[in-house]
Amino acid sequence: MKRRFALIDLRHDPEPDRHRRQIETALEKARSQGAELALLPELVFDPYFCQTESAAHFARAQRLDGEHAQMLGQWARSYDLVLVTSLFEARLPGICHNTALVVERDGSVAGIYRKMHIPDDPGYFEKYYFTPGDTGFCPIDCSAGRLGVLVCWDQWFPEAARLLCLAGADCLLYPTAIGWNPADPPEVRTRELDAWITIQRSHAIANGCPVLVANRTGHERDPSGQSEGIHFWGHGFAAGPQGEYLAPPTSDQASVRVVELDGERTGTVRANWPFLRDRRIDAYGAILERACPGPTRPKD
Amino acid sequence: MKRRFALIDLRHDPEPDRHRRQIETALEKARSQGAELALLPELVFDPYFCQTESAAHFARAQRLDGEHAQMLGQWARSYDLVLVTSLFEARLPGICHNTALVVERDGSVAGIYRKMHIPDDPGYFEKYYFTPGDTGFCPIDCSAGRLGVLVCWDQWFPEAARLLCLAGADCLLYPTAIGWNPADPPEVRTRELDAWITIQRSHAIANGCPVLVANRTGHERDPSGQSEGIHFWGHGFAAGPQGEYLAPPTSDQASVRVVELDGERTGTVRANWPFLRDRRIDAYGAILERACPGPTRPKD
Repeated sequence: MKRRFALIDLRHDPEPDRHRRQIETALEKARSQGAELALLPELVFDPYFCQTESAAHFARAQRLDGEHAQMLGQWARSYDLVLVTSLFEARLPGICHNTALVVERDGSVAGIYRKMHIPDDPGYFEKYYFTPGDTGFCPIDCSAGRLGVLVCWDQWFPEAARLLCLAGADCLLYPTAIGWNPADPPEVRTRELDAWITIQRSHAIANGCPVLVANRTGHERDPSGQSEGIHFWGHGFAAGPQGEYLAPPTSDQASVRVVELDGERTGTVRANWPFLRDRRIDAYGAILERACPGPTRPKD
Repeated sequence: MKRRFALIDLRHDPEPDRHRRQIETALEKARSQGAELALLPELVFDPYFCQTESAAHFARAQRLDGEHAQMLGQWARSYDLVLVTSLFEARLPGICHNTALVVERDGSVAGIYRKMHIPDDPGYFEKYYFTPGDTGFCPIDCSAGRLGVLVCWDQWFPEAARLLCLAGADCLLYPTAIGWNPADPPEVRTRELDAWITIQRSHAIANGCPVLVANRTGHERDPSGQSEGIHFWGHGFAAGPQGEYLAPPTSDQASVRVVELDGERTGTVRANWPFLRDRRIDAYGAILERACPGPTRPKD
């Protein structure tokens, strides 16, 4: 079975109506190219507010039946698209999450994923805002297949990709917000971008599973003035189950691209490279430890 | 602390004396360039006999104090190098392994690793010859540091790399024997080589740890005549802890290259990209399962 999915890299527009109109334009373009699913960047409605820590930003969080989720449902119906992105979820007072939603074409929520791995480094103070997710790593069934949805920082963790694939995900989808520190020299930026592409392609290869990523683009300033802000690097891409590009990472500009996923190819690739067959589950126990400075190797 | 390690890509010479002389030439070159460790391809003394299944090949297996291991010890002393490669180990009648050795500069064995993930696909009938290893994934301490030694097929498994790094490995070393099916078209070969490079670089990135690989080169014929044999693809390389090349994969020809590892850089990279801090060990349990087609995501 073949499916057409759209990758939408977006620049956040601080003017809300204009921001929504640009999303609608992108969704219309995706649909006109035959997509049945559109992947949008992380926290699609908000500026990347995690550049600073301010209690005022918690007012941005919404319940999963709030205005932002309703807007996604309306778009899903209007454009006849399954939508995947993340929202700032207000779950309970004092418990907010970075929550991905899969919104079905009829506007209903097919399932959610609460970001499990939460970053915290200069410019990305997410541990302040986002309680670690409790959904674990389970695929979400919808009309576009059995989706393995993860969010941004999860992309650095082979465990997350592996668990979704062991649970039967057809593909891995990463709504993302990552960028460069404008103060960093070009060689650092190149290395970071390359590492980010490489680690995600590796999840495709290790698991014989397509990987799709959509990222923010453009500069967002640091309201504290303490840094030069973030230059979100775009370069969303799609890779097939051997890591081969279906849509290469090409640019730090906003874009809409539609790729075709071949549902048969995962089986073909896994038959030729049967990694999942050979996993040593009897010897992986220490994966569940923080660190394991055990005895070193015996000599015989 | 900086260390110089040599990567030696080799073509198997079927004439044993000539084969040993070419290894000696490579080791001398490595030492003359200031290396303190040399990484050689997998099963360095043997032709890649796993292209066919024949009970006669079990006669090649040797005990870990046999002629091959002694030769490694003699070379380690002569060239004042730590040596890392794998041998066909005869452990007990009916139990043979593909066993990596770390041989100390005084000729003693610093530690062994028995290949844990065993491949089996056309041309690589390793499950017939090699009993799955029972050493688990523990680093080996030697004068060149705390080494994370794996063998070939292990390179496709993020779990193996992760476990060694959680146990404190300074670097990951992969003696390897992988190549192309000469009957495959160029685009297939390019994709396979690229996937092999990408997955290994990803282990560096995921773990903030250098990765080094040495591979066979050249064509070895299939004695059964049923296939066109294997064109071992060389392209050994070394990557630093963000996946950046210390020595890029450049050629399918035999080569000796010496790279410098900066022991401080792992700490710097892990401080900037603190992935290990954020692992969700509470939610990785299903990594120990074969497959986990559990319930799909709840809607709230």
